Amino acid sequence: MTSATQITPTRILGLDPGLRITGFGVVDKLGSQLRYVASGCIRTADGELPGRLKTLLDGVREIIATYTPDQVAVEKVFVNVNPQSTLLLGQARGAVICGAVSCELPVAEYTALQVKQAVVGYGKADKTQVQHMVQRLLALDGDPGADAADALACAICHANGSAGVLGALGGRRRAGRVMPLRGGR
Amino acid sequence: MTSATQITPTRILGLDPGLRITGFGVVDKLGSQLRYVASGCIRTADGELPGRLKTLLDGVREIIATYTPDQVAVEKVFVNVNPQSTLLLGQARGAVICGAVSCELPVAEYTALQVKQAVVGYGKADKTQVQHMVQRLLALDGDPGADAADALACAICHANGSAGVLGALGGRRRAGRVMPLRGGR
Repeated sequence: MTSATQITPTRILGLDPGLRITGFGVVDKLGSQLRYVASGCIRTADGELPGRLKTLLDGVREIIATYTPDQVAVEKVFVNVNPQSTLLLGQARGAVICGAVSCELPVAEYTALQVKQAVVGYGKADKTQVQHMVQRLLALDGDPGADAADALACAICHANGSAGVLGALGGRRRAGRVMPLRGGR
Repeated sequence: MTSATQITPTRILGLDPGLRITGFGVVDKLGSQLRYVASGCIRTADGELPGRLKTLLDGVREIIATYTPDQVAVEKVFVNVNPQSTLLLGQARGAVICGAVSCELPVAEYTALQVKQAVVGYGKADKTQVQHMVQRLLALDGDPGADAADALACAICHANGSAGVLGALGGRRRAGRVMPLRGGR
């Protein structure tokens, strides 16, 4: 009989950025197993842009302090037909990514197509299909809500392909655990 | 003979955001007088977006730690004809604003039109005219460079109209000095 090596799970924070609502989802990856940890969203009130960006930055930092993820996955946002909306969304996404990098965490980016492909197996899946598959894959009792579901889907997408992504970021393995080079915990 | 009240200058950091180059300019305002303090730019190397945003975030925070401004003025960026460029510029601007708000400094925003109007007196002035007027208004010996000139122009624009802006931010006056409600020094 040999003693099994103890494997520490990799904790992934998925983020779906938006100026009004930014969804987040935290998932533990242990081998090929996924475990739901938490999800929710950061809401910003109407007002001046700098204050709203601060709410997003502080919100992401607070989530990281609470759940201490090892890696962060952020959904690439759609380019809107309205250039002003694209600019606002870009600024929100900048603030959300800054929340993660200011905690020295590695950030990977995925398009909506990659996320849907990873979760539903079909790049043009609709929101309901994504929500349904997130609920099934993480064995959730209830509906996580649309914004949190997208963030959880992004975390699942990263968990499925994280070895390759971490390789690109220069990650290393120690005692069976994928260690980012610049750990944040 | 009456003794004059000692007035502390208000230090303004102007920022002109860009993903590749973000210009900065620091100016002291003492009554109606303006004094040049410093200027330069933050450059990001090619690479993954999260790392470049971190360079901008850390760069702005470092400038704030070095020059301890009281207020920050950021130029509103142009919406590009290319939506992808607009999105990238938006993310850079989000990171630059996060650098300021994470230091608890009040941030005012100005359009290029407002900046040119304030510095040259003409909203459609070209870059050379802006550079020339910045050099004259701050009595600079040499050319500050295009990126720093735009940032200095933004700081000058804010200095000219800062009472109104601070009023909107809920600022208060104490001993002749405009005090932001959330001071960063």
